[in-house]
Amino acid sequence: MTLRVAIVGLGKIARDQHVPSIAAVDGVELTAVASRNASLPGVACFATLDEMLERADLFDAVALCTPPQVRHGQALAALSAGKHVLLEKPPGATVSEVAPLVALARRNGVVLFATWHSRFAPAVEPARTFLASTTVRSVRIEWKEDVRKWHPGQEWIWEPGGLGVFDPGINALSIMTAILPRPVFLTQSDLFFPANRAAPIAASLAFADGHGVPVAAEFDWRETSGEIWNIVVETDAGTLTVADGGKRMRVDGALRVDEPDREYAAIYRRFAGLAADGAVDVDLSPLQHVADAFLLGRRRVVDEFVES
Amino acid sequence: MTLRVAIVGLGKIARDQHVPSIAAVDGVELTAVASRNASLPGVACFATLDEMLERADLFDAVALCTPPQVRHGQALAALSAGKHVLLEKPPGATVSEVAPLVALARRNGVVLFATWHSRFAPAVEPARTFLASTTVRSVRIEWKEDVRKWHPGQEWIWEPGGLGVFDPGINALSIMTAILPRPVFLTQSDLFFPANRAAPIAASLAFADGHGVPVAAEFDWRETSGEIWNIVVETDAGTLTVADGGKRMRVDGALRVDEPDREYAAIYRRFAGLAADGAVDVDLSPLQHVADAFLLGRRRVVDEFVES
Repeated sequence: MTLRVAIVGLGKIARDQHVPSIAAVDGVELTAVASRNASLPGVACFATLDEMLERADLFDAVALCTPPQVRHGQALAALSAGKHVLLEKPPGATVSEVAPLVALARRNGVVLFATWHSRFAPAVEPARTFLASTTVRSVRIEWKEDVRKWHPGQEWIWEPGGLGVFDPGINALSIMTAILPRPVFLTQSDLFFPANRAAPIAASLAFADGHGVPVAAEFDWRETSGEIWNIVVETDAGTLTVADGGKRMRVDGALRVDEPDREYAAIYRRFAGLAADGAVDVDLSPLQHVADAFLLGRRRVVDEFVES
Repeated sequence: MTLRVAIVGLGKIARDQHVPSIAAVDGVELTAVASRNASLPGVACFATLDEMLERADLFDAVALCTPPQVRHGQALAALSAGKHVLLEKPPGATVSEVAPLVALARRNGVVLFATWHSRFAPAVEPARTFLASTTVRSVRIEWKEDVRKWHPGQEWIWEPGGLGVFDPGINALSIMTAILPRPVFLTQSDLFFPANRAAPIAASLAFADGHGVPVAAEFDWRETSGEIWNIVVETDAGTLTVADGGKRMRVDGALRVDEPDREYAAIYRRFAGLAADGAVDVDLSPLQHVADAFLLGRRRVVDEFVES
C-alpha cells in the first residue's frame, strides 16, 4: 500500500531532498503540501497545516520540514489527527518536548520518526560494524563548511533554538552516536558566538567515554575552502575514516566505501516500513549532546557575522 | 543493618545538611570523609576518594557532595568499587553522563540515588495529591534569593557547568516536575548573565504542556529583601501555593501544611531504604529542563557581579 505523504514547510531541505526522494522511492507518494509562500504543481496545496488537516483524507503521513521552534505544535496536531509524523532533524527545539510526542504517537498507534539523515549515509553501517569488533583509542571529528553556501538567508538558524553551527554539527553527532560502541558524554565545550548573533558559528567539544578514550569535535561555519565532514577513529585495527559526510569510508587510507548520497531515499523507505509496522523510531542522543554543549558551554565572542 | 556512609566533599552543603542529617537518622552512620582541606573529629579522614577507596571496608555507601563538574569520575570509581552512591543535585554536569552510571549501578547491583532535596520538603507530596484531582489553569514560579548570602565564596557556581541561578532554580524545577500532573517543556528562555561571569544570575522561563496551560518561572539571585521560594498553581479547586521552598502549603490562602525543613533526614531514610532493596532512583527531568533552558536561551547581559 502506498504511503501518501504531506510536506509541511517548503524550504530548502524540502525542495532539495524530500520532494525528489519521495518521487524516487516506490511505496511513497507526495499528495499535499502546506506552505505559507510556496506551492508545488500537481499537488494539493494549503497555506497552513490546520487547513491541510481539514482535508485529512488526502494523506496518511506528515513530513515536518519547518524550523524546530515551531515543529512541536505541528507534530501534536498531526499525531492527534491520527497521522504518521516524520520529523526533520533536530526532533525538537528542546529535548523535553519530544517525550510527550512519543507517548501520543504510541497512544494513537501511529508512527513518530525522528530522522537523522546522516545516519543513512552509505559509510555509517560499515563503520559501525568495523568498530564493533575493534578497540577504539581516540576519535577526532571535523565538521566544517561555509554557512553562506549552505544556509543562505536562513535567519532562523541564528536565533535561540536554531542551533547555529550545531545545525550541521548535529549530523556529525548523529553519526558518532551510531558508530561508536560505547556511549560518550561531554566534558568540555567552547562555543564561539559572533558578537552580533545569538547562536554559535563554531564549537570545540571534548567528550569522554568513562574508559579514557578521548573524543574531540571541531565544528566551524567559517570554512570557505570547501567542506570538511570527517570522523577519524584510531583503533587497534587501524585508522578508520568516515569521510565526506559519510559517503566514503577508509581504513588506513584504503577506500572501502564510496557511494553517492541517497540518504533521503533511505529515510523514506524506512518511513514506509515503520508505517507498515506502526513503530516509533526516536533517538534523542544527538540533540542531548547539543543541549549538554550549551549547558556546559563557555561562550567566546568572535567577529560579527554579516551574510553579504 | 546500619548503612555506613562516606562523604566526599566537605563543603557548605555537607556540613550544613549531610553531616547533621546522617547523625539524626537511625540506620545510617557517617564512618569516613574525603576532603582535600577539611576533616571531621571521630571519623576516618582521607585527602581523596581514591585513598578512601583503599579502605573500602570502612563504608558501604558514598555521598558525593562535590561540585557537579567532578562528580562523574567519582561516581564511576565508587560504583566500580561496589559502593552505593548518593548524588547531590544536580546529578551531573551534563545529562548524557548519567545514563552510563545508571547502567553501571544496575550491573553491579548497587544503588544510584540522584537526590533532589526540595522534593522531600513537607508540602510537596500534599501538593501533588491536591493537583492530581484538579484541573490546572496556570503555574507561576518565583525563586529568588541573595547569592551573597546563600553561596558565599562559591566561585564554581559561576563556571560553565556550575549552573548559576539554576543551582537554586533547579530546586523549583524538581518540585514542579514532582507535583504537576502533566509533563511540561520549555518554550522560551531568557538568561541574564553578569558581564563578567560565565553563568546566569537570573532567568525568565516559559513552559507549555501541550494543552494550553501556561507555566512561567522567574529565578533571580539579586533578591536582597529576603528569600522568595514560591510556586503558585491556579486550579478549578482554588489557588494552591507551595511556599517557602516547600515548607508551607496554602489553598486559597488557608494554611494546610506548615512544617520545619527535614529534607536531608528524609533523603537519608530513603537512601537506607534503597540500599535495602538495591534499587536505582534517578530522575533527570529537572536537569533536562535546565539543559533545555541553555539550549533555547537568549543571552541578556546585565551588571557585573562582584562578590564583595
